[in-house]
This record gives sequence, C-alpha cells and structure tokens, in this order.
Amino acid sequence: MPGVPPTRFVYLGPEGTFSEQALKTVPAADRGILTPARSVPEALDALRSGDADAALVPLENSIGGQVGVTLDELASGEPLVITREVVLPVQFVLAARDDRSLESVRSVAAHPQAGAQCRKWLRAHAPQATVVDVLSNATAALGASSGEFDAAVCAEIGASRYKLHVLAKDIADNPDAMTRFALVARPGPPPPPTGDDLTTLAVYISHDRVGALLAVLTELSVRGINLTRIESRPTGEKLGRYVFFLDCGGHVADAQMGEALQGLRRICADVRFLGSYPRAAHGDAPPRPAPGLADVDFAAAATWLSRVRAGDLS
Amino acid sequence: MPGVPPTRFVYLGPEGTFSEQALKTVPAADRGILTPARSVPEALDALRSGDADAALVPLENSIGGQVGVTLDELASGEPLVITREVVLPVQFVLAARDDRSLESVRSVAAHPQAGAQCRKWLRAHAPQATVVDVLSNATAALGASSGEFDAAVCAEIGASRYKLHVLAKDIADNPDAMTRFALVARPGPPPPPTGDDLTTLAVYISHDRVGALLAVLTELSVRGINLTRIESRPTGEKLGRYVFFLDCGGHVADAQMGEALQGLRRICADVRFLGSYPRAAHGDAPPRPAPGLADVDFAAAATWLSRVRAGDLS
Amino acid sequence: MPGVPPTRFVYLGPEGTFSEQALKTVPAADRGILTPARSVPEALDALRSGDADAALVPLENSIGGQVGVTLDELASGEPLVITREVVLPVQFVLAARDDRSLESVRSVAAHPQAGAQCRKWLRAHAPQATVVDVLSNATAALGASSGEFDAAVCAEIGASRYKLHVLAKDIADNPDAMTRFALVARPGPPPPPTGDDLTTLAVYISHDRVGALLAVLTELSVRGINLTRIESRPTGEKLGRYVFFLDCGGHVADAQMGEALQGLRRICADVRFLGSYPRAAHGDAPPRPAPGLADVDFAAAATWLSRVRAGDLS
Amino acid sequence: MPGVPPTRFVYLGPEGTFSEQALKTVPAADRGILTPARSVPEALDALRSGDADAALVPLENSIGGQVGVTLDELASGEPLVITREVVLPVQFVLAARDDRSLESVRSVAAHPQAGAQCRKWLRAHAPQATVVDVLSNATAALGASSGEFDAAVCAEIGASRYKLHVLAKDIADNPDAMTRFALVARPGPPPPPTGDDLTTLAVYISHDRVGALLAVLTELSVRGINLTRIESRPTGEKLGRYVFFLDCGGHVADAQMGEALQGLRRICADVRFLGSYPRAAHGDAPPRPAPGLADVDFAAAATWLSRVRAGDLS
Repeated sequence: MPGVPPTRFVYLGPEGTFSEQALKTVPAADRGILTPARSVPEALDALRSGDADAALVPLENSIGGQVGVTLDELASGEPLVITREVVLPVQFVLAARDDRSLESVRSVAAHPQAGAQCRKWLRAHAPQATVVDVLSNATAALGASSGEFDAAVCAEIGASRYKLHVLAKDIADNPDAMTRFALVARPGPPPPPTGDDLTTLAVYISHDRVGALLAVLTELSVRGINLTRIESRPTGEKLGRYVFFLDCGGHVADAQMGEALQGLRRICADVRFLGSYPRAAHGDAPPRPAPGLADVDFAAAATWLSRVRAGDLS
Repeated sequence: MPGVPPTRFVYLGPEGTFSEQALKTVPAADRGILTPARSVPEALDALRSGDADAALVPLENSIGGQVGVTLDELASGEPLVITREVVLPVQFVLAARDDRSLESVRSVAAHPQAGAQCRKWLRAHAPQATVVDVLSNATAALGASSGEFDAAVCAEIGASRYKLHVLAKDIADNPDAMTRFALVARPGPPPPPTGDDLTTLAVYISHDRVGALLAVLTELSVRGINLTRIESRPTGEKLGRYVFFLDCGGHVADAQMGEALQGLRRICADVRFLGSYPRAAHGDAPPRPAPGLADVDFAAAATWLSRVRAGDLS
Repeated sequence: MPGVPPTRFVYLGPEGTFSEQALKTVPAADRGILTPARSVPEALDALRSGDADAALVPLENSIGGQVGVTLDELASGEPLVITREVVLPVQFVLAARDDRSLESVRSVAAHPQAGAQCRKWLRAHAPQATVVDVLSNATAALGASSGEFDAAVCAEIGASRYKLHVLAKDIADNPDAMTRFALVARPGPPPPPTGDDLTTLAVYISHDRVGALLAVLTELSVRGINLTRIESRPTGEKLGRYVFFLDCGGHVADAQMGEALQGLRRICADVRFLGSYPRAAHGDAPPRPAPGLADVDFAAAATWLSRVRAGDLS
Repeated sequence: MPGVPPTRFVYLGPEGTFSEQALKTVPAADRGILTPARSVPEALDALRSGDADAALVPLENSIGGQVGVTLDELASGEPLVITREVVLPVQFVLAARDDRSLESVRSVAAHPQAGAQCRKWLRAHAPQATVVDVLSNATAALGASSGEFDAAVCAEIGASRYKLHVLAKDIADNPDAMTRFALVARPGPPPPPTGDDLTTLAVYISHDRVGALLAVLTELSVRGINLTRIESRPTGEKLGRYVFFLDCGGHVADAQMGEALQGLRRICADVRFLGSYPRAAHGDAPPRPAPGLADVDFAAAATWLSRVRAGDLS
C-alpha cells in the first residue's frame, strides 16, 4: 500500500532461530522490517517503547514445555496482547561447515533442549560425538561455522544463514514435536472472531481463599468455556505464590467468554487479558459445546430474559 | 383514585380463613373487592379468566410444609406471577358458640393440620375433647357455630365471622409457626427492585442428564445467588419425575439474577419465571454476598469487560 | 415355620385403602397379622412401642407428591428404617351400593386428591354428579355403602370390603399414576445388597453455610451416586428451615455409598439414615455409572491405594 | 552405626551449586557419600540403577519457576518417590579470583536465571560490567577462577569451592527468593505422617473428557485437601497434551488423602504417586481445615458408618 509504512517486527534472535522461521509464516512480515532481539524481554521492551509494532516470541514447546520468560514478561509491565499464534513443527538438522561423514563428527554443539530432543538419534547415528551445551540454536550453528565444533544441532534456517552443509534432516526423536509462538502487539481491539479462537489470560487467585483455583475453573465450565492449557508461573513474591496462564476456547467478543471473563474478574485478585486470536490448525479440533452451551443457546437465553424482564411470559 | 376501578381480589376461602387475614395486610385490598374461592385452582382460574385481578393463596407453612396444589397450579396452565409475599404467624384460637369452660368441651372440629399443630395444647387443656377432622379451618368454625361440635380450632378471623366466643388464644404448640402466602397476578412487569427481593422459579431438569440438579445449583452459586427454598413436586407424568420450585435471593432486574436465569434457561428442559417481589420481613436476614459477588462487583466487572473488548487495557 | 410367631404388620387404614393393597404384595404378609392404623403417626408409634413389627405407609404419589406426615415421622422420634418399597398403580374405581347407571349418580364422595385425579373422567362420564370431599378413600366407600352418597371414588379393595358394586374401573385421568409405599421397621442390619438398591436419608444442612445444599449434592456426585428424589420438609422451628429427604441409588454396604455417607455426615448438621432396600421395578432403569465410578473401579482404586501405602509402586 | 554402610547420595552438580548446599542440610548426608551428577537425568538414573540411594535435585524456584527436567524425569521411567523437601534461600554472591573493587569488574559470568535475579543489583553496583551467560552457577565460578571472567554470580558454596574472594553477598534483587529441592529415593514405605505433610502426584487427565481438570480439583476439595501447587508439563506426545503435578497438603496414610487418591485414580487416565513427606517450614502455615474436614471428623464419620452398617442407629 503506498504511503503505509511497513510493520516493524522484532523476534527472538539471533537470526536463524525458529522464531524467525515462525515470523516468516505471518503474511505481513513479507513487507515488514524484521529485527532480531537478544532475548524475549528485549523483544517485548522494543514493543512497549514503540520501537517495534509487533514481536514474535515462543510460548511453549511440546517437549520442553512453557517458555517461562515469555509468560513472565506478558504478565508484568505495560499490557501487551497476543494477536496471532503460530505453531511450527520442530525440525532439527545436523549441520557442519563442510560435507562430512557422520562417523567423523566428534563434537556437536546444541542448545540443551535441542540436544535432549535429538539424543537418541545422535547416539544411534553419530556415536562418536560428544554433545556440548551452548546457549541457543543459533549459537550452535555459529560454533559449527567457526570450526569450534564439528557440527551443530540447529534449525534449517540457521544452517542456511551460516552457510552450513546439512548432514542430516529431521533428526528429532519425536517427529511430532512442535513449538507454539505468539505474535504480540500493544493493546488494541482484538482481531475479529473467526468461530475458532483462543483467549489467553493471566489470572491471580486469592491465596487466602481455599478452593480459589476450583472456583476459577467453575467460572469457565459453567459457561461452557473449554480450557486448553493452564500454566503456572511464580509471581516472584515468595515460594508458593503463582500466577496462572489460561488458554480458553472462544473470543472475548463472544457472549459466553464475556460472561466468564466478568466472573473471573469478580472472584480473582487480578485478571490480565492477554488477547483473543484465531486458533492455529494443529492437533485436536475444538470440542463441540455441551448441550445448552452453544452460541445459539446464549442468544436464545438472552432473548428470553429480555422478554421476562418486560413481563412477557407468553 | 377517581375513575380507577377497584382491584378485584380473590382468595382461598371460605371467609374466615388465614388467606383472608393475609389478604387484609395488602394495602390495596382496603379499596378492593374481596371474593373467596372454594379452592386454589378456582382462585387462580378466576385470575386467568380475567374475573379477578389478583389472587391470594397459601404457599407453605412452617409446620405443614408446601401447599402442593398452589405449586402445581403455578407450574402449569397460563403463566401467572407472584407479585408479593405475605407471611403471617399462625395463631389458632379455640372457639365455641357460647362461652363455656374448657373442661366441658367434648368434641373439637379441626382441619387435620390445625389439629396436629395444637395437639399438645388440646391434650393438656381440653383433655375430655375428641378431635374430629374436617376439611378446612372455616368448616370447623361453621361446625361449632351450628352446634355440630362443641368447639372449633380456627383462625381468629373465622371465630369473629361466625360470631363464636374465643375460649383460648394462641393455642398452637409452636408459637413461631408461620404461613407464607403469595399474591398472584397475570404476567406484567415485576414490581421494581427494593434491594431485598425474592425470585421464584419452576425448573424442569433434564432427566437423562446425570447431575442436572447439581448443575442448577451451580448456576446459582457461581452468580452468588442464595437459594432460600427448594421444593419438588411430581410432574404427573410418572413416578420419579419432578419439577423444582426455587426461591432465590434477588430480582430479575439484577445483573446476577439475569445471568443466572439465562444459565438455567440454557441447561434446563424448561424454566418458568414465577415472579420477583420484595422479601417479607421475617426470620433470617439475607446473607451478605460472598466476596466479589455484590452488585457493585457485577457493575465493575461489566465496565472492565467493555474496556477490554474495546482494546483498552490501561 | 413352626415356632416362629407371625409378623405383626400395621398399615395406614382404614381397611380397604391402597396401603392395605400394598401390604398384600409383601410375601410375609400372607402369614402375618395385619392391623389398620388410623394415621401414619399411629402406625409408626405402634412400631416404636413394639406393638407391631413392621408398618406399611405411603411415601409419595406421582400426582399428589410427597406424603408429608410420613416424612416428618421418619425424620423425628426414635429411629426407624425402610426395608422395602412397594410401588402400586393407582387404580380408582367408581363404586355404589347398588348397580346403577352413571347418569343417575348425583353425589360422589372422594378424598380431595382422589377427586382431583379423576376430575376429567367424572365430568365426562357422570356430569350430573357433585363431588363431595371426604377425609379418606375408605371414608368415601363407607359413605356410599351407608347411602349417604350415591357413589364413591375409592380403591378396588375398598369397594370389595364395603361390598359395593363397581360402576367403572380405571377412572383416573392419568393411567400411569402410581403410589410409592414404604415398609418400615425398627433399626437392624439392612437387607443385603441386590445390585439395584436405594438408600434413603434425611439430611439437615447448616443454615449458616452458603451453598450447603450444593455441597451435599457434590458429595453424592463425586462418588457417582445418583439422586433419584429430593424432597424438603419444614423442620418446624421457623419458616425457612428445611430437612431434605434424599433417595440415592446404591446400598449402604457399597463402597461408594459408604464414602458418600461419611462425606455427608462430615459436612451436614445431621444425617439420619432411613434404610437401604431393593429398588422396586418401575419406570426408568437406573443410569449406568459414569466412567470410573462403577463398583469395579472402587475396588481397583482401593487395591491400588493399599499398594501405594505399602510403598509398592510397581 | 557400625556395620551400616553409609548412604550414597547423588546431587545435581557440579560441586558448589545450590543442590550440594541443600543436600548438606539433610542429617544423614553427614555420614554419607556425596557425588555430583552432570544433570538431573543422570542423578535419577544413578538412583534407578542402584548406584545411589538418594538423589537431591531442584524442583522449583520462586523466581525461575518449575524445573521442568526434574518433573519430566519423575513422571516417566521407573517409579521414584520424594522423601523430603528442602527449601533454601537463594543467596547469590559476587565472587572473583582476587579481592578487587566492584568498579573494576568488566565481565561477570552468570547462569541466565542467576543473572536475571541479580540484574538490578549489578546495574547499580557494577555498572561497568557486561554479564555473560554461562550454563550453570558452578561454571560461572569456574570461569572466574580461571580468569576467563572478572567475576561470577554464584552460590556461596561455589565461591568457597573455587577459592574465590566474595566481593558482595546477598546480591539477589528479591531477598526472599527461594529454591525448593527434593530428596528422591526408590519406592518404599513413605516417612511416617508428621501432621504437616505434603503429597506429590503426577496426574494424567482424560483429554476426551470436558472438565477433567475441574473434576480433579473437586476430588481434592470434597475431601478438604488443600492444593498448594499445580504445574503442567507437556507429555511429549503432541502440543496440547499435559501432565499435571500436584502438591497436596496431607499424607498418603491420612484418611482424607487416601479417599482423594482413590478418587483421582478412578477418574484420571493415570495417577503416579510421587511421595508423602514432611512440609519444610517456610512461608505460609497450612490453612486450617474447613468445618467437617479435620482428621477428627473423618474418624467420627467412619465410626458412624460402621454403626449404621451394623444396624445400630442409636
């Protein structure tokens, strides 16, 4: 569009990580300016300060679990919202400076989680190799590129960026491993409902109230809201204090989600809205609503109540 | 008011029963036309057919329990609503055609429930008397008036109507016994909320759904709605099929009651709204709302949701 | 059995009521001594005093609902237990002293509930007849026998006892109407589980505890106990105080019922056990237990816990 | 004890980490053999293979949150149990090869989580220093010892082991930060109840059952079991599949915990018992049991049930 400045995206760097690969699945990234950040806090700070318009950061991995730093950053500081989720298969490659045989590889640089996810494969196919922990997948690729290590476990995008030879593809022990990323923005009206959306919340329960978490889940259940994920993170105050991150099926604009959010707001110490966005297709289809809890039931009940309030019981 | 026709009231007769006494506590009854009905169905039929504007019928007694016929009539047929509750202490008198000693009373006419409520007193104070069951308190008074029985257990209003001598007052074994009556009208906008109201519902649960009653109570509990009474009545279809009558603290115009009613409407086979009306002062004060469930909390949560939906997370 | 004295049964009289008919379905009643009582309290007092060994009294009717006096008597006084339920179709007849045409019937004696249950039939088939309320079905039969009334609505057993001509059979408007009776005894070990039993409880909830009834239902639901009936009765203290009668699927000897009963005992102000007895076949089959809540699941979980406690996690 | 071989302890190494410090709080460690492991999996493998008798590994940190690898290792493989928890204040020091001024420190080695926890202090007191991420606190100390970095953020035990000068103590931004460790053993009878114990479980819910997590919390709540912590970890199968780790107040030998565990076992796809052990004193006292849910109430209800089952209702 003439006259419209390109979107400034920031992502968890360095270049060549899965985050960059995830960002490239976002249509607007084609015409945008993409900048790596050294850490998730740095990426989100760029967003908060106005230096970037959107940030692509990892949320969780189907093997490694929650990305704690992302959750912590979303729960604190100036409010931010998730506007899109990106789910990417984790496809590790083994790459080296030169084309060489697997038997000749004596040292492999790998981020600890990446190494763990490829452990069986490495033991079977590069039995001579010692795996050395490094701080990121891209650091591993760089280490192989510099010759410090014989090879690296990294993302395909990392291998190509550092001009490495791919010795083997798809070396993750679990071929279904996936990482889920979030495209984060400053607050604004959420993307419109698509009929298959997720809403993410950070919920602080009252610690002096027994059964507070049960009450939270009941607020969702009564409105037929499906909870697809719950993560806890320490609040930092003291051991035993947690904030809960909830991924709920539905959009903040839906009647049932609106009612549930109000319910949570009433009974919780605090609720932070972290965005409504389309669910990325992967894994399970969303469950069908329970009897009486579909959109049409909410609309019908609202109509009925209006009539009752007006005294029309016909 | 000039030109305004007087309200036509019907009440469970015959004249001289507690229902007439209850009706006389209703301010508008002063200028109204009061007609006894032979039965609760007859009273409510007069209302439905337009022959009366309001009907005063008994709902429950603190000794005898539910008045099944009233509940059954409210749950079926053309919709009616309760617009007022009247709670009356049950004050039985022993009355006779002439002033006579208690020792000389050999036969006492009493409605079975009235006899049961005065059993100990009669045994202690009129030990010679045989209690004979009759079909209403007014029938008892009439029987004493005609001389068929030496005395009658009846309401004070019944004694005066049949010009009986009151031999003893307050003869009920439980001095705190009370009867609760309903003033019933054809559907229309309910009386405005007073801050201490009741809402009565007839609820048909889904019998093929395990835990359906638990789900009903959860809908109320989640919105902080206090259930002050639950009665079951057979639906008449077959043994094991019941309709539940719920008295809930709050008014249909309240946010929390509106939400709860919609919830019930969604999950129940049917919900019949039977009125919102001021709570009559008696017995317990309404419990204070649980944390987060007061009116102000509902208003605050609604405001918050509006802002969230607009993208304002400040 | 030689030497064993016959069981002394008492039932809600007078002779010729449905209660007598219900008692005759009990095998041991063949060799027993059957005595009518004038009221439910009288019947249960005979049991408590040792003058009778078992009492047959009505519990509920699918049209008329709860038999309050029976519930009240079971909830108070010396403990008694239900050992058997009897469910009887309500088959009213219209009977008269002589065989006569329906058109000629001008007055019909009927217990109010019986009259109500046959109202449409009477209007259609005996349009000339005025229905007069009397105090029991047997009183109606007696009235017809004495000639005070042209005819009576009564049970078949009542017609034959008073040697009346049956003018018409099955005159109830709802052909599926049924009455449920209880055979009551002094406390003792309950009849052994049959795999399809009911347990009846009287439960007093804590009135100062919000959500107490919800908590009661949750105790049942968590153990997969199906609630087939809940009735409330006033405790008599004051308006707004109720005792709840629960009929639950299962036997006190079952693991799940044992756990649920302990749960209720812990959270309720009082729980009165009113018996475990075989379910009489009628209406719905009991629902199948939810996943994980069958007898076999309780047994498996108990075995697992024993092993865990012993440190065996294999 | 003469003749009793010393316990062979393994802990998350290298030497000089907080895990070693935590292990030294365990009395039996005085006379035991202590061996560092390179990773949590290695420590627990030593236990499973019989090369060690107990392993000390971190569970969670009040700033960094869950230690995912420990949870994952406990949930899979041969069963292991926690027999003791150790809670340790996180007291970081800044240490260097020589005594030097803070101003002169240009590079600081730190584990990323340690660096994050001391960020504000470092910025204020060593503003010239660049923080370099390394893979463990002990690696940081080693790096300072070798002169690769000017200083290290590490545990006090790490500074002394590498003969470093402590330049500053208690440099964590949050002085209340704590780490919670577990002493893990092969299965066996748990330590006896102390009256203030925790039980840890890994729970797999049924993903095809809506509200499965709500059902889990209800099983606990109904028995008055307090949930002090819930963590989710991916099962590894696919995105959206989680195993939940629950820390519950109480001991497996308690009646209420036994009932709750059986309940979970029945409704969950799988439950793995991970130990009952004394709660380490820190932070909040355990909440007092709700009315009716204390030990004495469980005992009283059990006694009552025994009597009821025997037919004794006196």
